[in-house]
Parts: sequence; structure tokens; C-alpha cells
Amino acid sequence: MSEIRFVVGVDVGGTKIAAAVVDGQRRLLGRVQRPTEVGDTARTLASIADAVRQAVRAASLTLADIAAVGLGIPGQVDPVAGVGRNSVNLGWRDAPVRAFLEAELGVRCAIENDVSVAALGESHAGVGRGLPSLVYLIMGTGIAARVVIDGRLYRGVNGLAGEIGHLVFDPDGPLCKCGRRGCLEAIASGPGIAARAREGLAAGRRSALRDVLVRTGALTTHDVFATADAGDAWAGEVLAQTSRYLGQAVATLLMLFDPAAVVLGGGLAHSGPRLIQGIHAELARQAETSLVLREQYRPDKVVVSPLGDDAALLGAAALVLSERKQLYQEG
Amino acid sequence: MSEIRFVVGVDVGGTKIAAAVVDGQRRLLGRVQRPTEVGDTARTLASIADAVRQAVRAASLTLADIAAVGLGIPGQVDPVAGVGRNSVNLGWRDAPVRAFLEAELGVRCAIENDVSVAALGESHAGVGRGLPSLVYLIMGTGIAARVVIDGRLYRGVNGLAGEIGHLVFDPDGPLCKCGRRGCLEAIASGPGIAARAREGLAAGRRSALRDVLVRTGALTTHDVFATADAGDAWAGEVLAQTSRYLGQAVATLLMLFDPAAVVLGGGLAHSGPRLIQGIHAELARQAETSLVLREQYRPDKVVVSPLGDDAALLGAAALVLSERKQLYQEG
Repeated sequence: MSEIRFVVGVDVGGTKIAAAVVDGQRRLLGRVQRPTEVGDTARTLASIADAVRQAVRAASLTLADIAAVGLGIPGQVDPVAGVGRNSVNLGWRDAPVRAFLEAELGVRCAIENDVSVAALGESHAGVGRGLPSLVYLIMGTGIAARVVIDGRLYRGVNGLAGEIGHLVFDPDGPLCKCGRRGCLEAIASGPGIAARAREGLAAGRRSALRDVLVRTGALTTHDVFATADAGDAWAGEVLAQTSRYLGQAVATLLMLFDPAAVVLGGGLAHSGPRLIQGIHAELARQAETSLVLREQYRPDKVVVSPLGDDAALLGAAALVLSERKQLYQEG
Repeated sequence: MSEIRFVVGVDVGGTKIAAAVVDGQRRLLGRVQRPTEVGDTARTLASIADAVRQAVRAASLTLADIAAVGLGIPGQVDPVAGVGRNSVNLGWRDAPVRAFLEAELGVRCAIENDVSVAALGESHAGVGRGLPSLVYLIMGTGIAARVVIDGRLYRGVNGLAGEIGHLVFDPDGPLCKCGRRGCLEAIASGPGIAARAREGLAAGRRSALRDVLVRTGALTTHDVFATADAGDAWAGEVLAQTSRYLGQAVATLLMLFDPAAVVLGGGLAHSGPRLIQGIHAELARQAETSLVLREQYRPDKVVVSPLGDDAALLGAAALVLSERKQLYQEG
């Protein structure tokens, strides 16, 4: 499709919308960002359309120059119908994203789940270029994996492949919003880490985190990791346990998908070197005793996303830069 | 490839070799079986060639009628080089299977791991026909899963995708031959079940299994399951715990691959209804609390292999009935 000169990639989040014009060489032009208006589907959709217009203007282009718009949307997405089925972050159900935007902008649109789009971005424009397979593990407010095989997204029959965030890693752990106890997401996501840190304080652990909690009224992952870096024992334990859980998760992905690379994305992947070092330490420990994992794990196969936030923009652009059949495994 | 009229499918096991002529409609003709001669690679290869000749004779054909031979081989296989890399069951390393058989029989040959071949058989000629994806879980002396997406085998970069037998399900469990403790294979395979039953006896559990052990000098899975069926409490507990472990394994496969079907194969899958009922009970219990698994699990999606031993023969034939590019995912 060498005739396509410009497309727009959009990353729709619960708090902000990023958009950029992307050219045929997958370069980002005219990158913009604006707040997401939530609570009213029509207003949210209108703010997405505005972000597209802003990006086009920022690239000194007009909508007539744009061949198509690709969008990454949080929550459950029906890419065939072009509908956002359900998003807790955006507060919508069955939002007619494609129909609205195509009418509003007069440009062809395609949508996909935001994490899937980031995985496609890593595969088409990041570490995954030229690799036969890639697993993208997002570690942030939520935890989920997405699998790209031969450049194409493997969604599963319900679009639920890679839901490692809802595998149970601690049967006695806290209740997850999926309904089970001790899911990876309930214990090792941002909110899960903060909750585990608070639990220790409630159980009487001495820690500088107690003062932070009293001062701010809430703990964040950043508080826990910064306090750990300052030498606090309990915060250090929470961080170490988190990297063990996430290391186990990566080991599970390596064992089951045996991919060419695992790319770590999301806020936790970019929270500093200590968590990532801990993940590698857990993988090295497991590979030492496991004949299978020893073949599957190499430190340079498990890497922090070099694209960061650009992964979703580039992946959203890839949705419309590539033919649909080049993007999806049938399974 | 409608011009192909006959191929031979071969299932090479540690104790016996099965072979059959397969026609273009995937019907089995002239099925034969003979003991495997192990301990000497040249003799093992010669006995495989003999099995092929016997099958061809049994179908009232000659080797001149055979377009190609496909073989399922235990252990690590390099399908591109046509070499059996390593097989504990056959006691060989770097066995030149394809070169030997092509010279001996004068017919084109293709080889693949035996479990992968059974998965292809289920996909091409069994429950997987027409489905976008399938996970085949073999539960016998070993435990492993194989993934078929869009009719093609997803091998992973090291040919080690689906190695769920070496995920840890009980950190305090017995040592596995892979080097780790409490792998699924160490606790829920045939030998793992017998070992757990013996452990209970050693710890003083009263059970009719004690008499079996004294009488025969060893316990088998069949002993444990038959004694459970006769109402023995400890044997019943071992069986129930086994189905919980295997149910968890199927839940993990559903969560990560979200396949259209999970096919259960191997000796344990055909050990009677009680284990399978227990696996479904565990899945139903988990689906009750998990929003994700509730979408992924339906009783009719997890089925015992209807092809049984024929799966490997039909899959081996599929290796040569289909084009290579139709059989493999690049990942």
C-alpha cells in the first residue's frame, strides 16, 4: 500500500487522548494530546474527533491528506463492527466509534483494544520488527499480555487470549475485580502493589510508608518504589515480592508461547531499574533449575518497551497501514 | 494436492510403532503395529522402515503407490533438518530419521514431534476441523500442550510452546525430571499420580492400595483409579486432586490461548469418566467466580479426543498431505 502517505494513530485513554500523524515510514508527525471527556459517550467521541483534527493541523496537513485513522480504545472492542463494547475507564457500552468518526471526519477508521494496538506497535515498529513472534506484557493499572505471531495479532475466539492478569498467583490473595482471589492483577498491578503495602502497615509493619499514608491519605506505586529506594525495609519487601510475581508471569508466558521476545510495557515497566532487575533475577533463578526455561529465557529476550507511549500510536497507525489479513490470526 | 492418492502415517512410540496408509480423504487403510527396537539407532530406524512396508502390504499396495511418509517421533525433533534430536524413550540423539528412511524406502519423508502430530491430527481430521484454533493437551506418561492456530502448528522459536507440563503447580511438590519441584508433570502425569498415591501410604494412610503395592511391587494409575472406583477413600482423594490439577491446567490454557477447543488426549484422557468429570467440575467451579473464564469455558469446548491413537497417524499423514506453509505458524 505504498500509495498511502499519511494516516492518524490515536491512543484513547481514560484521562487523555494522544494522536499523531504517521507517515509511510512509520514516523510520528504532529503529535498532540488532550484531556478525555468522559461520562457522556457523544462528548467522548467528539473529543476523539477533535484530537484527530488537532494532530492533522499540527502536521500542517488537512483531513483530505489523511488516508485513514486507527484507534486504540480501552476495554472490550469489536474491531469488525467498529464498536467499543464496554469500557470502565471511558464509562461507555456499545459506543459506535467507527460510525461516528467516519461521519464526523469523512475518513475511514479502524479500532482495536489499546493494549493490542501497543503490541502491534512493538511488533511493527519496535523490538518485534523481523521477529517471528512477540508477547507484549502491559503492567500498569491492569496487567494483560498480547500475542503477535508472524506480525499478526492472535486474539483468541473471544478476543481474550493472553489474559494472564486473571491467572491466580496467590490463592489466599485479595479479591480481584474479575471475581477471583489472588489474580496477578490484584497483587502486582499498580493498585495491587499499593494495597499490599497498606496491608503490611495495617498488620503493624514499621515503615516510612506510614508517614506517607498519613500525610497524603493514599499510597501510590511511586511512593512504595521511592521509599524502597530510600532503604525502607517493608517497601523493599513489597517491591521484591512484586518482581517475583511479575517474573513468574513472564516465565509462564515464555513456557506457553515460547516467543522470540517479551516486551514489558505500561507504567510499572518504566518505574525504574529495580523492578525490572528483580524480574530478571526471578527468571534467572527459575532458568537455573528448569531445563525448559533455560532454553526459552535469555536476558536480551525480555526487554522494556523502547517505544513507550509511542507504541500505541504506531500500532493504531499499523491498524490502517496494513491489510486486515496481515494483522490478525484467525484463531 | 489432489493428485496425491496415498501417504503413510507413522506413530513411533517407545514400545510400539503404529503405521497406516492414509488416502486423500484421510481414511486409514492397512493399519499395522509392531514392537519398537530400542537401544541401537540403526535398528530402531530399520524397524520404522519395516512398519512402513508392512502397512503398505496390508493395504495391498506397493511403495511405488506411496507419495510420502509422515512420522511422529517422541522427544525433540528438528522437522527442517529431518533429525530426531533427542529422545529418552528411543534412546537416541541426532538420529538421521529422514535421510535414513528416504534412502531405505525411496519415498519422501517428513517428521515432527509425536504430540504435535497428534494435535495436527485432531485439527485436520478430528474435533478441530473448521475451527480457528485448538489446544491439544496430552496427559499420560508426560504432560504437554500443542497449539494449532488456523490449521497450523504454533511451535514457538525453540519448538517449546505449550510446555505446561513444566509449569509449577505445587511449589512444595516432588522433584520433576526437568529440574524443578512440583511441575504439573511431576504431580499429575501417570507416574506422578502413582508417586502421590505411594507417598500417602508411606505417610500411614489406610488404603486398599497398600495391598496392591505389596502384591505387585508397584502402583499404576490404573490401580489408583480402579481402587478409587471401588470406594477407597485415599485413592479417591488422589484422583480428585489429580482432576483439580488438570482442571487448573486447562483453565490456564483457556486463559492464555482462548482457543475454540481444548482436546484431551493420552492415556489419562481415556482412563474413564471420573477424571474427566473432575476436570470439568474444577473448570465449572473456577468459571463461577471468574468473569474471564466464564466467557472462555463451555463444557462442550473441552473434549476427550475422539480419534485416540488414530490422531497421531492422521496428523503424521497431514504432515505430508498438506503444504509445509499450511502446517506452521512462523512463530
